[in-house]
Amino acid sequence: MRRAGGSAVRRRARSLKRGCDSGMQFETILSPLGLLLCVAGLGMLVPALVDIAADNPDWQVFLASSFLSGGTGAFLYLGFRDRPGKWRRREGFLFVSASWIVLSVAASLPFMLTGIELSAADAFFEAVSGLTTTGSTVLTGLDNMPPGILMWRSILQWTGGVGIVVLSVFLFPFLKLGGQHLFALESSDTAEKSFARFEEYATRIILLYLGLTVACMVLYDVLGMSSFDAINHAMTTVSTGGYSTSDLSMGKFHSLPILWVSIVFMWLGAMPFMVLLFLFSARRRYFDVQIVYFFAVILVAVVVVVAALRLRNDPINFATLTSVIFTVTAIITTTGYAYQDYGGWPAPAILAIFLVTLLGGCSGSTSGGLKMFRIVVLVEMCRAAFRRLLWPSAVRSMRYGRQTIDEDVTIAVATFVLLYSATLVFGAVVLAISGQDLITSVSASATAIANVGPGLGPTVGPAFNFAGLSDFQKMVLSIQMLLGRLEIMSVLILLAPAFWRQ
Amino acid sequence: MRRAGGSAVRRRARSLKRGCDSGMQFETILSPLGLLLCVAGLGMLVPALVDIAADNPDWQVFLASSFLSGGTGAFLYLGFRDRPGKWRRREGFLFVSASWIVLSVAASLPFMLTGIELSAADAFFEAVSGLTTTGSTVLTGLDNMPPGILMWRSILQWTGGVGIVVLSVFLFPFLKLGGQHLFALESSDTAEKSFARFEEYATRIILLYLGLTVACMVLYDVLGMSSFDAINHAMTTVSTGGYSTSDLSMGKFHSLPILWVSIVFMWLGAMPFMVLLFLFSARRRYFDVQIVYFFAVILVAVVVVVAALRLRNDPINFATLTSVIFTVTAIITTTGYAYQDYGGWPAPAILAIFLVTLLGGCSGSTSGGLKMFRIVVLVEMCRAAFRRLLWPSAVRSMRYGRQTIDEDVTIAVATFVLLYSATLVFGAVVLAISGQDLITSVSASATAIANVGPGLGPTVGPAFNFAGLSDFQKMVLSIQMLLGRLEIMSVLILLAPAFWRQ
Repeated sequence: MRRAGGSAVRRRARSLKRGCDSGMQFETILSPLGLLLCVAGLGMLVPALVDIAADNPDWQVFLASSFLSGGTGAFLYLGFRDRPGKWRRREGFLFVSASWIVLSVAASLPFMLTGIELSAADAFFEAVSGLTTTGSTVLTGLDNMPPGILMWRSILQWTGGVGIVVLSVFLFPFLKLGGQHLFALESSDTAEKSFARFEEYATRIILLYLGLTVACMVLYDVLGMSSFDAINHAMTTVSTGGYSTSDLSMGKFHSLPILWVSIVFMWLGAMPFMVLLFLFSARRRYFDVQIVYFFAVILVAVVVVVAALRLRNDPINFATLTSVIFTVTAIITTTGYAYQDYGGWPAPAILAIFLVTLLGGCSGSTSGGLKMFRIVVLVEMCRAAFRRLLWPSAVRSMRYGRQTIDEDVTIAVATFVLLYSATLVFGAVVLAISGQDLITSVSASATAIANVGPGLGPTVGPAFNFAGLSDFQKMVLSIQMLLGRLEIMSVLILLAPAFWRQ
Repeated sequence: MRRAGGSAVRRRARSLKRGCDSGMQFETILSPLGLLLCVAGLGMLVPALVDIAADNPDWQVFLASSFLSGGTGAFLYLGFRDRPGKWRRREGFLFVSASWIVLSVAASLPFMLTGIELSAADAFFEAVSGLTTTGSTVLTGLDNMPPGILMWRSILQWTGGVGIVVLSVFLFPFLKLGGQHLFALESSDTAEKSFARFEEYATRIILLYLGLTVACMVLYDVLGMSSFDAINHAMTTVSTGGYSTSDLSMGKFHSLPILWVSIVFMWLGAMPFMVLLFLFSARRRYFDVQIVYFFAVILVAVVVVVAALRLRNDPINFATLTSVIFTVTAIITTTGYAYQDYGGWPAPAILAIFLVTLLGGCSGSTSGGLKMFRIVVLVEMCRAAFRRLLWPSAVRSMRYGRQTIDEDVTIAVATFVLLYSATLVFGAVVLAISGQDLITSVSASATAIANVGPGLGPTVGPAFNFAGLSDFQKMVLSIQMLLGRLEIMSVLILLAPAFWRQ
């Protein structure tokens, strides 16, 4: 009795001492969240204009959603602007998850209220799939859909893409998420100086992203896409999102040159944006060894697929080769465009595609998955283990390019891979229990957490979509997509009681 | 030109300086290998006697094989006994792999030469599957097979089981394989003292193993098995091997009490033998936290399977429950007995069985797979990662029971898991390329590397066997079984040129 009382007193004393420092400071994140909602409201004006131009009544819905989202945003921003709470790690984590969830809710409004009238679960799934640049869809009949809705889907992926690049260049390394402190920018600067640097780099990244999108759009247009298709596909190519304006995805265009443009811009979208930024800079050379691994994996996967097709006596010509490279690229960059139904490929090719689904592109890019830098670290980890077996007393550190990989990063990477696998397995088991078959469960879970898009099998395979799943299954996959996009731990940590208490 | 010449001179000088210390000393391992072959020769006398008693002409083959194996062994032993080379780590590694391979070759003789006349690939597969206690078989018609062959298969598993326990208690921790230095016995002793300790403990372990086998045999016998079946199944239960005297495996006996005896003795076979050894010792208490995880995983798997069956409206009664517990136990302990064809179970149950296939029992036991202690380390790794996110500056070490897990062990465990997955994937891709379907490729590769026994699907599922695979596929799986049994790295290191050179 006395002990319990004593500890309660002590706890209260401690919390008093900590004062305002204790507990989550929600005010901190409300005003920036409001700002994001305002941006979302502004974004909704684009499809509104598109629908006005196309004389489609959906423009009213977009306008109303815009007012709702922008109004809520303005209320939050103005109401909490003068109460700037502290930014600590916990507010950072909460803000990251909250921004993706709140924006997804706002973004799902037009899906519910326009003529396509999706259910809440469908609309949320579609919005999350967009903002996480996954590209899984519940919609069929895209080819006859009003242009506003199609444009809205592309805008979601485009914004989601640039959002994740900025986070993964500036925030994730700082939060040490999954070993990303390997990419921490020099931190010797003062707070002001580093914020100035952030503004400078962020602006440049956004300009680069915009430039890539415009270049991709022009090329698509020149090669025969309609301007509307070109704009939409450029936005979902560079963001490695994969939403299309057709149920046939890239199959609509029957054009090898278009496929090659798409391949190159998916590659660019999967590059570390800091490398692209410094590519033409004489001032500072910057290369990232994960790029080599990225193309090596593509090469191996293409060889396996082509060999498997050859063994089945499929004719191998330039068109097949393009189709294979396109498919492997669409999957590994986590874009998820389809050109042909690779569901009919032989077993080794399917296996290769499934493995590539898990890997993803480079970190600091728009693509999802495990990220190539983690593969580099894992390979180095194995090499170091063999070295240690051969020469137990020799000391040689693990290298990432010219950098040293310390044990801290190694363990963080291994932990991430483990959590990624565990989430994948957990999702698959839940989907299987809720009634899906083995292939659908495993591949849908994998494609969601890796933010790729299509799965395998007769329900979620490349020739089908996610409409056939139950609302529950769609919610599970929405959560998987968010987990994958936000590097898992930053979301899971919100479930820890200690995160809220302390 | 001058540089190349200089480095050659330097290399030669270095190798001269090292003198006899350089290069692999094959003499070291030849005499103990010879001893093992002599033991194998002696072992072959048992099925010879059994076949004489059964009046089956196979006894001549066993006798001839015994002379061949024992003769070669004696030649090696006597020829190299007086030239004891140095035992270094490299000779240790070579001896471990060589002993399993040489014994497998010797053990395959009776399979080729007796009435069942297996091909070389089949015979080697069956021998490897026996000595690695995997239990995958290429034989059909076991029920009508001569007793000598059946007894020989059981003997292989029984010896393979005790062999791996001894290695994993004494050698693997010393070689630091896959993080097993977590279990290093106190190493402060002198060489002589530690050898005396080795002899003492090894003898006790063998006696314990023998005692468990006899107890299991008596219970099987009492509950209605024929004495021959009881002896054979006792040997393959305690060694978590899984060879049976019937194509129906444990389905032959239609007896719930027999299943329960089998369950309990498979559990015992999957326990860390050092814990069993100290269980009744007042002198020294020793517990191992992986045991808790082992039973927790069984519980979860059983619940998932029962829930999945219930959802399908299967009746759940004591018999079903026993069958489920038996199946989960047979898989997780890597025994691989079958009681019912769980291939027809619903997707979540199949998924649970597949995952359990990968895990395996406790380290220091006869079972294979990832081993539970690694799961403990991985779970601790994740917990530590979340702690670090919540309290970046706090220092708290990872715990394995009352022990601290250092970063060395963590990274070694993560590396093992990675190599295990890579081997699994590599094997699956090779099987798929060689013509097997997806489920067969993945499950056969998994069951081989985890030393379980049955796979999934219409070729290698629990109701079928491995006879339908090609010789090439059997060789691939034989290598997978050896890799899995010998903790992967100890075999893979033989492929490193530096291992032989230095």
